[in-house]
Amino acid sequence: MNKGLTAKGRATRQRIVVATALLTREKGAAETTLDDVRAATATSKSQLFHYFPEGRSDILTAVAEYEAGQVLDVQQPFLGDLSTWESWQKWRQAVLDHYIELGQRCPLGSLTTELGKSSAEARAILTTLFTEWEEALFLGVRTLTSAEPEAARIRARSILAAIQGGVVMLQATGVTDYLTAALMTSTDPLRPTAEGTD
Amino acid sequence: MNKGLTAKGRATRQRIVVATALLTREKGAAETTLDDVRAATATSKSQLFHYFPEGRSDILTAVAEYEAGQVLDVQQPFLGDLSTWESWQKWRQAVLDHYIELGQRCPLGSLTTELGKSSAEARAILTTLFTEWEEALFLGVRTLTSAEPEAARIRARSILAAIQGGVVMLQATGVTDYLTAALMTSTDPLRPTAEGTD
Repeated sequence: MNKGLTAKGRATRQRIVVATALLTREKGAAETTLDDVRAATATSKSQLFHYFPEGRSDILTAVAEYEAGQVLDVQQPFLGDLSTWESWQKWRQAVLDHYIELGQRCPLGSLTTELGKSSAEARAILTTLFTEWEEALFLGVRTLTSAEPEAARIRARSILAAIQGGVVMLQATGVTDYLTAALMTSTDPLRPTAEGTD
Repeated sequence: MNKGLTAKGRATRQRIVVATALLTREKGAAETTLDDVRAATATSKSQLFHYFPEGRSDILTAVAEYEAGQVLDVQQPFLGDLSTWESWQKWRQAVLDHYIELGQRCPLGSLTTELGKSSAEARAILTTLFTEWEEALFLGVRTLTSAEPEAARIRARSILAAIQGGVVMLQATGVTDYLTAALMTSTDPLRPTAEGTD
């Protein structure tokens, strides 16, 4: 990824990636042109191609990688240790706070609905993100409950899908209620006292 | 919508809308140009502007309307009467069958991730779709269970978000497991014998 860049070069490259990530959240990946990137980062065409030899698709892949990292980072440290119900509660609150704050301009929405389709590389990054995320949830379900692996797998997938659904509906409508309902409903059955699902 | 068109005119307009819907499912709305529409429908530029005076945005709005109708149609007659658990089971099986068959090219994925963002009109169509859909699920939850309105509302929203999440993950990865897990897990608690959530 760093391709022998100097520290300064790496910083410049990173600055371009971060600025482009904000553009794609705002305008959508499909609408983000190289000219937009140049304007937003005050870089020349030759500079851009120095850091991203394949141009736009290279930049979008780097942005997808960055955004996937962002998606997991905001869930830490809770996602990494979902062994207690307290940690689950903190985790889901962190997820809700994050997406409600970002609203319609979020890295996950941008990834699932646009960036992830921009190239085979971006698609692979998205698939890896889902896999890592599911694995962390799966481990959490297994550790917290006595669920069999298959049931824990299904629960983990349903929680993951609930978040994706809530986030794309938030992106599409500006309404946060779907995300809240989906995340709470899909995780409440994990509550140790088994108080039920409502 | 019909704007005084003759029966033949309405048929031609509808043919353009259906063909464009297939294009947007395949390529994405952002990548679908007027030239693509002309090529796919063997119509002239002046014909297109006769039926869609505002051009591309007019066509995409009509496509969004058509796709929203498709999304609800495939769920009938079950969605319209979710008063029995049998009907719920048939409904969710119809939803699964439909999306698993369509795979990565489906009207709902196309709507939520692209079409719905193409214009204010398209966004309004998507919001209306979600509202109607949620209402049908809410009525079903209320009729089948003794849930209070607020709990039924949360359950309906969580089911709706589960489907959106499963469908966008299917679109992004080609994997159907998320949709199956999300739909089953979000509706299983409605099972009258209350056998639980797994």
